[in-house]
Amino acid sequence: MLIDDLQAVLPGDRIVRDPDVLRSFAHDEAEWAPYAQPAVVVRPRTADEVQATVRQCIEHATPLVTRGAGTGLSGGANAVEGCVVLVLDRMTAIREIDPVERLAVVEPGVVNDDLRAACAAQGLWYPPDPASSPWSTIGGNVATNAGGVCCVKYGVTRDYVLGLQVVTGTGELVRLGRRTAKGVAGYDLAGLMVGSEGTLGVVTEVTVRLRAQRAPERTVAGYFDSTVAAGEAAAAIAAAGVVPSALELVDRHCLAAVDAWKNMGLSADAEVVLLGRSDAPGEAGDREATVMLECFEKAGATWAAQSSDQEEADALFAARRLAYPALERLGPVLTEDVCVPTHLVPEMLARIDLAAKRHDTQVANIAHIGDGNLHPLLITPTGDEDARRRAQAAFDDIVADALALGGTVTGEHGVGLLKRTGLVQELGPGVLELHHAVKKALDPHGILNPGKVLGPHSDE
Amino acid sequence: MLIDDLQAVLPGDRIVRDPDVLRSFAHDEAEWAPYAQPAVVVRPRTADEVQATVRQCIEHATPLVTRGAGTGLSGGANAVEGCVVLVLDRMTAIREIDPVERLAVVEPGVVNDDLRAACAAQGLWYPPDPASSPWSTIGGNVATNAGGVCCVKYGVTRDYVLGLQVVTGTGELVRLGRRTAKGVAGYDLAGLMVGSEGTLGVVTEVTVRLRAQRAPERTVAGYFDSTVAAGEAAAAIAAAGVVPSALELVDRHCLAAVDAWKNMGLSADAEVVLLGRSDAPGEAGDREATVMLECFEKAGATWAAQSSDQEEADALFAARRLAYPALERLGPVLTEDVCVPTHLVPEMLARIDLAAKRHDTQVANIAHIGDGNLHPLLITPTGDEDARRRAQAAFDDIVADALALGGTVTGEHGVGLLKRTGLVQELGPGVLELHHAVKKALDPHGILNPGKVLGPHSDE
Repeated sequence: MLIDDLQAVLPGDRIVRDPDVLRSFAHDEAEWAPYAQPAVVVRPRTADEVQATVRQCIEHATPLVTRGAGTGLSGGANAVEGCVVLVLDRMTAIREIDPVERLAVVEPGVVNDDLRAACAAQGLWYPPDPASSPWSTIGGNVATNAGGVCCVKYGVTRDYVLGLQVVTGTGELVRLGRRTAKGVAGYDLAGLMVGSEGTLGVVTEVTVRLRAQRAPERTVAGYFDSTVAAGEAAAAIAAAGVVPSALELVDRHCLAAVDAWKNMGLSADAEVVLLGRSDAPGEAGDREATVMLECFEKAGATWAAQSSDQEEADALFAARRLAYPALERLGPVLTEDVCVPTHLVPEMLARIDLAAKRHDTQVANIAHIGDGNLHPLLITPTGDEDARRRAQAAFDDIVADALALGGTVTGEHGVGLLKRTGLVQELGPGVLELHHAVKKALDPHGILNPGKVLGPHSDE
Repeated sequence: MLIDDLQAVLPGDRIVRDPDVLRSFAHDEAEWAPYAQPAVVVRPRTADEVQATVRQCIEHATPLVTRGAGTGLSGGANAVEGCVVLVLDRMTAIREIDPVERLAVVEPGVVNDDLRAACAAQGLWYPPDPASSPWSTIGGNVATNAGGVCCVKYGVTRDYVLGLQVVTGTGELVRLGRRTAKGVAGYDLAGLMVGSEGTLGVVTEVTVRLRAQRAPERTVAGYFDSTVAAGEAAAAIAAAGVVPSALELVDRHCLAAVDAWKNMGLSADAEVVLLGRSDAPGEAGDREATVMLECFEKAGATWAAQSSDQEEADALFAARRLAYPALERLGPVLTEDVCVPTHLVPEMLARIDLAAKRHDTQVANIAHIGDGNLHPLLITPTGDEDARRRAQAAFDDIVADALALGGTVTGEHGVGLLKRTGLVQELGPGVLELHHAVKKALDPHGILNPGKVLGPHSDE
């Protein structure tokens, strides 16, 4: 039996069978995605223990669902019937931070903010900063290719992953990628693993590229009467050739929810708040802040100013980070993650408003608007089944609109379970076939997070 | 017969059978790598014609070797016996340059410098700048994940590829990747294609990310008595936390060869010239130039100065670009492309000197030294077979040294044929198995540039 065999190869405290604990590891933050009860939870401390677990899953033809902190928003970490849930939250060593080579080597369970703090202590910066950074792990960030606030200027997790240690679908422990600045020795399998949501391998160590810490940022804030007006400001900033270090949208619903929870004394005088930042040094930063301010005003901001109060600016960014958990307190939230070309952001925001009205669904908006990545959050009263059906219809319309505008169904959260239908629409049959071929090549036993990202293949 | 069937599906002028022309398309610039005579050359004008050609190769179980300008240095484009050579040099349309979304869409035969010039006309910049940029094509750059001078600060081709149109190994024409700033819908198959040297698909269109044009650069030049001293200057710059926009090494042999060819009046007073650049604006740029100068001097530069003469600085960079073809005029050149961690650059340069002495082989050095990517060029007199054997032994020692120092056998040129042995040493059996699995999944008929990057699989 699987559990007996796991007990034979792992220290006893790695294996969890208590049903209450199993339940707590059965799903991530995607409340709408289905999940089952795992057969067992394994919390390994070493790569060898991960490898031993993978080998047992192969031996027993048992699905393996790997997860970190479980902050995912697409159901990618949800348990499937009878699976092993492999929780990497005890592999938290920061093995190395090298200021000369500008890289860090960490175990997958290191929390994003912990890595960032350790780097900062050496004058270094690990840019990817998902809103979940106080809780989410580097392993999870790698699995979903997490983005965040800084992406508009500094790119996503994949841009910072140099190398990985991985347990493969055949149970081998291997190193992919490199430690050098450049390298083209063979296929970019490390890059292929990033964003593959645990379906192609289990990451047991991550080598990330670092940057030097930045100069303090300037913040420009603006109030708008509508998301569309704020979207026009964002499109104007892109058209003006400015690449801000952050450009975030938060609407009144989000600010109110955060304020109700955290009592931060946030102003909610406006329908929509836009927050821009520049980290360009000296005069270049002044110029960027001025351009952003002009774009805000031309797009019809009811109020706009360069913030002289760093605390106030930080509070607004903190509120943006807390928007999702704050809204979750009000009822089940269905999270979109569409991303469209910058100049189509106003059009997309208008279509989101229309979808909300068409399906009588309450939508709150947060957005990494500078790179066209929009997160309309569809909120339903707890237990209202009809509202859920309407929200699902609005969700589907928004996905269809994003694809019609040349966008993608997921900018940074991943496909998981919630976006599988959208993925099929986005990729088309030829590209889906390539995905299935790669999946089968790297997971020949079909044990790695089965059913996530890709549904069953047509020949199964 | 294959050629009859190609003639049935392609316009007549796309098919080349003249033996002299076939010979001219039989190999790239890797003089030491083996090649055969192709059966036929196809020069398509559209993606549909590429697709028709791939389908005929599948039908007739005929190898397909795709190439652009043939400036590769590893034999990746060398013809194999009886193959079709697919030359994409007639697919030269720049379809789109979008200054707001900051992207360009081009056919694979567009020459790198032509794209850069078209972008510059709109105030935009396509950074990847291999030394071959006046001749090499974007398609070839994508196939090898080409680097260049700017990589030390701005990354390589892969960092700029957003999307690809590809003919797959099963003859489907598909789009991979995206046009949006972010996107995680499915596996990163566009990234997987980059650097795969025509072994996983044929690229028929490329969507690249662009940047805004930069401020003019400052140049700092220094003369050194040895490559090791220059390497110490480079390591000191990295340790000081400065990321130059270029940091290039050129030795006396290269300068002399360029001067003999182009009569540029280059000074060759020093054993080694180091060229650093900063494109940081304003005071930050002054500071970077000062730090570089100090690092040059501390490392024992016999002369160093910030260049006040832009023409002279440009001439030195031009000479660096011409070093390879200039040396080729003197005899067969065997090109290394090792890349090591920055702090080990002096050690690696010392080992290169030792390998040259040990095997009585003349070595000229150019290097993207700022990112640890070294190009010792092993030169042999034409027709001297013993010198060739000695050079090959030196080549192998240098590869072994790079791997011993935690480096890679190829930083930017690709594996092709010349670095296959090194690849096996670098990756090890577990990772090689993954490569073969991916290759088989995406090229099930085994027609795409067979034998390149990976040798035959052990079960073949």
